[in-house]
Amino acid sequence: MATIPKVGSENLYAVPLTLEGASVLHQMFRFRWPEWRKLSAGEQREILAEAGAALEKLEQHVSGQSALFSMLGHKAELMLVHFRNEFDHLKHAELDIARLRLNDYLEQTHSFVSVVELGLYESSLKLYRSLQEKGVEPHTPEWDNAVKDTVRRQTEAMRPRLFPQIPPARYVCFYPMDRRRGEEKNWYSLPIEERQRQMEEHGMVGRRYAGTVKQIISGSIGFDDWEWGVDLFADDPVIFKKLIYEMRFDEVSAVYALFGQFFVGVRVPGGKIEELFKGQLPE
Amino acid sequence: MATIPKVGSENLYAVPLTLEGASVLHQMFRFRWPEWRKLSAGEQREILAEAGAALEKLEQHVSGQSALFSMLGHKAELMLVHFRNEFDHLKHAELDIARLRLNDYLEQTHSFVSVVELGLYESSLKLYRSLQEKGVEPHTPEWDNAVKDTVRRQTEAMRPRLFPQIPPARYVCFYPMDRRRGEEKNWYSLPIEERQRQMEEHGMVGRRYAGTVKQIISGSIGFDDWEWGVDLFADDPVIFKKLIYEMRFDEVSAVYALFGQFFVGVRVPGGKIEELFKGQLPE
Amino acid sequence: MATIPKVGSENLYAVPLTLEGASVLHQMFRFRWPEWRKLSAGEQREILAEAGAALEKLEQHVSGQSALFSMLGHKAELMLVHFRNEFDHLKHAELDIARLRLNDYLEQTHSFVSVVELGLYESSLKLYRSLQEKGVEPHTPEWDNAVKDTVRRQTEAMRPRLFPQIPPARYVCFYPMDRRRGEEKNWYSLPIEERQRQMEEHGMVGRRYAGTVKQIISGSIGFDDWEWGVDLFADDPVIFKKLIYEMRFDEVSAVYALFGQFFVGVRVPGGKIEELFKGQLPE
Amino acid sequence: MATIPKVGSENLYAVPLTLEGASVLHQMFRFRWPEWRKLSAGEQREILAEAGAALEKLEQHVSGQSALFSMLGHKAELMLVHFRNEFDHLKHAELDIARLRLNDYLEQTHSFVSVVELGLYESSLKLYRSLQEKGVEPHTPEWDNAVKDTVRRQTEAMRPRLFPQIPPARYVCFYPMDRRRGEEKNWYSLPIEERQRQMEEHGMVGRRYAGTVKQIISGSIGFDDWEWGVDLFADDPVIFKKLIYEMRFDEVSAVYALFGQFFVGVRVPGGKIEELFKGQLPE
Amino acid sequence: MATIPKVGSENLYAVPLTLEGASVLHQMFRFRWPEWRKLSAGEQREILAEAGAALEKLEQHVSGQSALFSMLGHKAELMLVHFRNEFDHLKHAELDIARLRLNDYLEQTHSFVSVVELGLYESSLKLYRSLQEKGVEPHTPEWDNAVKDTVRRQTEAMRPRLFPQIPPARYVCFYPMDRRRGEEKNWYSLPIEERQRQMEEHGMVGRRYAGTVKQIISGSIGFDDWEWGVDLFADDPVIFKKLIYEMRFDEVSAVYALFGQFFVGVRVPGGKIEELFKGQLPE
Repeated sequence: MATIPKVGSENLYAVPLTLEGASVLHQMFRFRWPEWRKLSAGEQREILAEAGAALEKLEQHVSGQSALFSMLGHKAELMLVHFRNEFDHLKHAELDIARLRLNDYLEQTHSFVSVVELGLYESSLKLYRSLQEKGVEPHTPEWDNAVKDTVRRQTEAMRPRLFPQIPPARYVCFYPMDRRRGEEKNWYSLPIEERQRQMEEHGMVGRRYAGTVKQIISGSIGFDDWEWGVDLFADDPVIFKKLIYEMRFDEVSAVYALFGQFFVGVRVPGGKIEELFKGQLPE
Repeated sequence: MATIPKVGSENLYAVPLTLEGASVLHQMFRFRWPEWRKLSAGEQREILAEAGAALEKLEQHVSGQSALFSMLGHKAELMLVHFRNEFDHLKHAELDIARLRLNDYLEQTHSFVSVVELGLYESSLKLYRSLQEKGVEPHTPEWDNAVKDTVRRQTEAMRPRLFPQIPPARYVCFYPMDRRRGEEKNWYSLPIEERQRQMEEHGMVGRRYAGTVKQIISGSIGFDDWEWGVDLFADDPVIFKKLIYEMRFDEVSAVYALFGQFFVGVRVPGGKIEELFKGQLPE
Repeated sequence: MATIPKVGSENLYAVPLTLEGASVLHQMFRFRWPEWRKLSAGEQREILAEAGAALEKLEQHVSGQSALFSMLGHKAELMLVHFRNEFDHLKHAELDIARLRLNDYLEQTHSFVSVVELGLYESSLKLYRSLQEKGVEPHTPEWDNAVKDTVRRQTEAMRPRLFPQIPPARYVCFYPMDRRRGEEKNWYSLPIEERQRQMEEHGMVGRRYAGTVKQIISGSIGFDDWEWGVDLFADDPVIFKKLIYEMRFDEVSAVYALFGQFFVGVRVPGGKIEELFKGQLPE
Repeated sequence: MATIPKVGSENLYAVPLTLEGASVLHQMFRFRWPEWRKLSAGEQREILAEAGAALEKLEQHVSGQSALFSMLGHKAELMLVHFRNEFDHLKHAELDIARLRLNDYLEQTHSFVSVVELGLYESSLKLYRSLQEKGVEPHTPEWDNAVKDTVRRQTEAMRPRLFPQIPPARYVCFYPMDRRRGEEKNWYSLPIEERQRQMEEHGMVGRRYAGTVKQIISGSIGFDDWEWGVDLFADDPVIFKKLIYEMRFDEVSAVYALFGQFFVGVRVPGGKIEELFKGQLPE
Repeated sequence: MATIPKVGSENLYAVPLTLEGASVLHQMFRFRWPEWRKLSAGEQREILAEAGAALEKLEQHVSGQSALFSMLGHKAELMLVHFRNEFDHLKHAELDIARLRLNDYLEQTHSFVSVVELGLYESSLKLYRSLQEKGVEPHTPEWDNAVKDTVRRQTEAMRPRLFPQIPPARYVCFYPMDRRRGEEKNWYSLPIEERQRQMEEHGMVGRRYAGTVKQIISGSIGFDDWEWGVDLFADDPVIFKKLIYEMRFDEVSAVYALFGQFFVGVRVPGGKIEELFKGQLPE
């Protein structure tokens, strides 16, 4: 039986530190075209004007940005992504959308609730090793303070990545994922050193795409049905395929990644939603 | 082939004692916004007033409390949780909700039927060992009496945890779970001593969160499609993620836990349901 | 590779004899409350009176009993269980229900088609051993006659259990199940002696609950998507949990049982259906 | 790693020859009883008369037969099975049904597209062995001609089974199935000799039921989501259970068979569809 | 634990080069026959005339072709396939269809977003070997230039296959697929040499069908829920079954292929859509 690495053993403490930032809500909607078509052109214009104005406000919300995407395929016609400083503000955004007249023509088919997350495998390992060398026992006040101190310092240093702007790229790719907990291959049973090594290898692939893809990882353990959500932003959608395909050969992805549904779409400024429903994809 | 530990062997009797308390029903609902919007403001007010009054009564039901939550994401707009001293009273609560005018605008998408459960791994092992040392055979009258006696005494001692108040925390996280019965890794084939050891380790993580999270476990074997339901209550939703992520590295979770869907939401006093439908999240 | 036990080998013939009795249909329905509420009190009364009378007739059907249950949770509001001496009479019952006015307010969400089954592991093994000792080859006329004779005698002896009355207990628990055919753990590849041993151990747990739970097993191979259906009847619903939890540690359940959805509910005499829709659970 | 048998090796060529016959379409429908009940008796009669006449024509179609079944359980109220000499004629049948007035009350919930198939494991092995002995290399013109010749001769000999009449038995059982491609147990990685041996054993069980059950196998690789469809026809539905249960202990079924949903029903002559909707099951 | 082949090791660099061409969208629709039948013949004719004209334009779109298929079975009545030079043009096509009056009678049940892909296992291996022999390190400018050069030259040479015409064959078969990432059998953990060998064997089967089947592979990693989509085009639908069945015994398919749903249908020129809804399948 696989043994869980224990503190004090050579594998150190198992749980890597994480930083949490903005609360995130993805909303995916189908569109009720037959109902929509029953409206007069004037009614449609009114409804879209109301929606456009509301979306422009959400895009500039003081608690964080929202963005609208026109999606490909039957899984969603539209996707809204909300980043907020406060968890409650996600619900406010949800209620704001629900109360729009446009919502009569939206059927929400998916959603994803998460919190921007930075995993600190490298710092955690360094900290745990240094505490171990000093003979500090886990969950003693000294250990807890050292952990809190690291988290506090990193949170400050990482603030722009924890509360990110939504990248202005034209295309988005979103998918949820898990780390495998199979009977033989179980990510959560690997020693932390091994997980750190694989994550580092994985990160090196990502870095080669740094100029062309922006990535935001959010954690959804306790919030939604998958462990993480991944948002990729790029100006060439083929890059999504290139990056994810290359990563699939990393050990951490090849062996330990389980993927949910993939959503791909095109950014649409909220104020230009009317163009979209005229059949045009705003530039 | 894995052998099931047998009484009389060194592994003792396989089945841990459990205590059962309040009957529990979770109800998850989507909201039919387009139908709702067709009502006049007056009709909406009337319907919400009727619902608010009914919810306030259910919250204070003599047989146990109910609580309303405003949920995030498309899986549910609202969640109702009912704790009752009698199983039949769950059905009464269900019928009470079904007969509200508000129910015309609710689409029930999920539910969970269970009974508050306390697992007595430690006491069971102690009792079984002591009976074994005395040479008492399982399922003899002497054995049965000793078991009944333990259950009776523990039930009295644990009454407040078996028939709990719903914690007043602002956020709720609910999810169902199973213990894995895989071809290689099978919780139900482990010796009871090994299960007790893993549950104890698991409990130690929980204890470190005692000040910030309240947890209620209910058993649903024979009642619903998963073996247990877990309700977490906290004033900071990020704590849900922290706790569950840390626990995922416990051996019992890493190897033997299978999770269903996660539901997260915000407590709303029944009497304030009208605020919610005006787009506000009551404080 | 696991070898299938062959006749003539020490494992004897693989297939245990089974007896088949009453044909069984479970029907699960949601209730269209919003449509129902649109009816006047008078119309509701009329529809329920028609349904109540029809249910009372089905409950006393000459070909076998039917029973109505008020279910907990969103999976079903009502469950109807029909036992019939003739397979075709299940379809008659289905058409009778379909043609009720009440059916306009029912949405059938699940069903289960099966035949009451008694597995004869012990008798089969005894018979096969005796035939083997006499040197009778399988599927010779002598073998076939001995089998037919055993089946005929047992069918007579077991008639009350093959065409059972529906137990009058207040609560029902229904679930379908399979025996696992995994890559490593495969019930159908075990020697018949081993299966007989595990089934006997399993039966011994059941016998301890004989006074408090009635169980009816029906086979659905060739009729529905699972191999068996299990109906439990008891006057205390917590007993369902106790029994199934204890059994889960049996080797045959721990390793070889796969479970479908669980349905739990309260018996309602057909003639009292009107009370139910007034929000009361008839005693 | 399992090695795929290669031509020229002792395992011979891996792919067994198959013969293809009639194209087959199964259509499963729920029935919209609430909508139906809104019609006057006269309208219902008209619609059923139109449907009855159309079904009688389809039953006698020059390109192959159709048959109507009244099904048990919520998965389908009706099933139509069409056998046709030409693939396109399946689409004609589908359009004919779609354009009936009765179709307004049908909700198609399942379907299955396939082609009657006879697998030639025994002949293939004999042919491959003989070609190998003559030193004929696979996919040389000589090999291809020998294969074509075998297929042509067998197709002629098997014509009645390739373009079968629908057996007149009262009951039908339909289910789709796959051969397992697990990580350890993989049908497609077994040597052809081993597959031939298991199929022969499997066939011997079937032969014992020859007098009571008619079986039609159709292949759906490339046409539908499972690899094969199985239709069983019998005058006693319990025989379906007996046969499939007994077969489940064959090595090829125990280890390598994966089953989809099971559909069971009663044959109804198209011209008697009106009786069915009056609540009677035509004899 | 399986080791991922590393550059510099004997297994060379793991990721094969791929070429990307036309963007592709598959749309599958059910048809709302009951709603359709409510229209007058004149309205139907008008709607089909509008749709026919629009489809003819899409079939000849300057950015790539579209094609309409009449599908078998309940999963789809119609399938539209769009090939476009620009990703955004897929969304234009989607909006064009969504805004047709015919769309009121279409229910989109599936879709697939992908990009025509050619995998260069053989060239990649050759290139990586030659770079390794020259001592060129991966991701050095020299390596990157050699890769870019190969991709550029192959893209030019393969242009007709990267931006293909839709083959004029009568029948289509579409299905999505993945390469298995099981705990034991994991395509992405195999050395590139082994993957190249299996793909070559796989390709040899395909080549024997070259005269009778046209195949277009598109990659959907990052775009949809499966890794690849496969379109087969042939004038005899039984060939789909023959080809896919034969390939199922290839090592790469037997062990590493996971398949989604299969869709099969008949080509219908957009201008002849009216015939289809009169119950005829245009020649």
